[in-house]
Amino acid sequence: MGEARGRRVLVVGTGLLGASVGLALSGCGNDVQLLDTDLDAVAVAERRGAGRAWDGTPVDLAVLATPPHVVAECLAKLQQTGAADAYTDVASVKQAVLDEAEELGCDLRRFVGGHPMAGGETSGPGAARADLFAGRPWALCPTSEVEDDAMDAVLCAVSATGARPVLCAPAEHDAAVGLVSHAPHMVASALAATLLDAPPLALDLAGRGLADTTRIAAGDVTLWRHIVHRNRAPVADAVRQVADRLTRLADDLRVGDADAVEALLAGGAAGRARLG
Amino acid sequence: MGEARGRRVLVVGTGLLGASVGLALSGCGNDVQLLDTDLDAVAVAERRGAGRAWDGTPVDLAVLATPPHVVAECLAKLQQTGAADAYTDVASVKQAVLDEAEELGCDLRRFVGGHPMAGGETSGPGAARADLFAGRPWALCPTSEVEDDAMDAVLCAVSATGARPVLCAPAEHDAAVGLVSHAPHMVASALAATLLDAPPLALDLAGRGLADTTRIAAGDVTLWRHIVHRNRAPVADAVRQVADRLTRLADDLRVGDADAVEALLAGGAAGRARLG
Repeated sequence: MGEARGRRVLVVGTGLLGASVGLALSGCGNDVQLLDTDLDAVAVAERRGAGRAWDGTPVDLAVLATPPHVVAECLAKLQQTGAADAYTDVASVKQAVLDEAEELGCDLRRFVGGHPMAGGETSGPGAARADLFAGRPWALCPTSEVEDDAMDAVLCAVSATGARPVLCAPAEHDAAVGLVSHAPHMVASALAATLLDAPPLALDLAGRGLADTTRIAAGDVTLWRHIVHRNRAPVADAVRQVADRLTRLADDLRVGDADAVEALLAGGAAGRARLG
Repeated sequence: MGEARGRRVLVVGTGLLGASVGLALSGCGNDVQLLDTDLDAVAVAERRGAGRAWDGTPVDLAVLATPPHVVAECLAKLQQTGAADAYTDVASVKQAVLDEAEELGCDLRRFVGGHPMAGGETSGPGAARADLFAGRPWALCPTSEVEDDAMDAVLCAVSATGARPVLCAPAEHDAAVGLVSHAPHMVASALAATLLDAPPLALDLAGRGLADTTRIAAGDVTLWRHIVHRNRAPVADAVRQVADRLTRLADDLRVGDADAVEALLAGGAAGRARLG
């Protein structure tokens, strides 16, 4: 694996993830440059020490931290101008991005899809932190076409952020995050939507349990539309599982089957225990 | 409202809630006595300063902090021996407790059902805190039979814990907590149950979002069986709502309807925003 310092890195998209990548890689001696259609976001990221505005010269590695639905288009444009030697992204869907990139004629020998498992409900460069990825898994999904030196450049940058690289196939990644991230987001949204008609007393009696259970439902609606739509088959499977369990439960409650209620509670407690 | 000090209070059930009530009421000058079938729990609560073991003499107020399915039985026994002048409980279902108490011939003129909205995933007297209820809502559900001085004694004790009393009818309470507490618990359980068969990669990529969304599913299975079973009609309604939304979503995902996905996300974000 190459040196984690002295590289020229272009971060495209200076939101929470992009600016945090910039902070982490600047912090260990890389020359980080920043690009975003939102010039204010670049200015905030720059002031926070995430890097400097891109001067247009070619770099070693480009990290595409744009919303998922523009990653492929962005990759195609940058590759057409020879902007970087290797490319990665941070989108939380991997197969759809590859499919879109292939359709646009991108050179997939120089692109390794990535997905840092970090972030949360905050957004924007103002919330960026150099240690956002420290100790967190960062999925990397190289295809068989990827050339070794491109893989090396990406792996090196990811390790430099303090993240723990987790190698997996794109479809395997998408099924996994469909289950542990995208479907839970939709379940939280469906639950939170019941609050739209909740009487004032119910809101007054709501506690931390509900706040935690629905917290992720406060996320960016447009961003999540694109994520979930691009991973719809795995998300549909997981959502259907939860829906079927809850439909059965509602029926069991109607007939007063307390054992069925306990079985679901026990299954939930055992499943939760697997998170450690 | 009477004085919040110098009262003789019997706390029955020295788990997290009971011991915290004991700590709060001892802390403002009341003579708190403790009773539990688990003598170790009484000893722990006593060592932590929640009160002293009950000497068997009559008290002004008994706070029944037992599991919900034994509240009525406990009330009946204590009333038969004239243990206290007034009674309250902390169970998270109110109508079922009243129905059971009536069936057992309890004197409902001296009982005001209560439910502090505090606690969480910890349990036992070791986790008790004098400020557990500070600033939290505490539902009180007096029936029309309740005598003024009994209501006064309960209201006085609740206020002394630092909680904010919220008066409501028992059925109104049950519908509200069905929506904001019991149904969310079952939804978290149904979601967490999908992790039982999750591949190691999925668990490795799981982040804080999933941990928060499923946290309450780690709660006490037997306790929650009794709670949910005793509030099954309101819980079934709310669970059915969530199940129907998720079933429709799974269908929408299958046909690639991104607008429907966005509509659910927007509804969830708007519902979540009502929690403040």
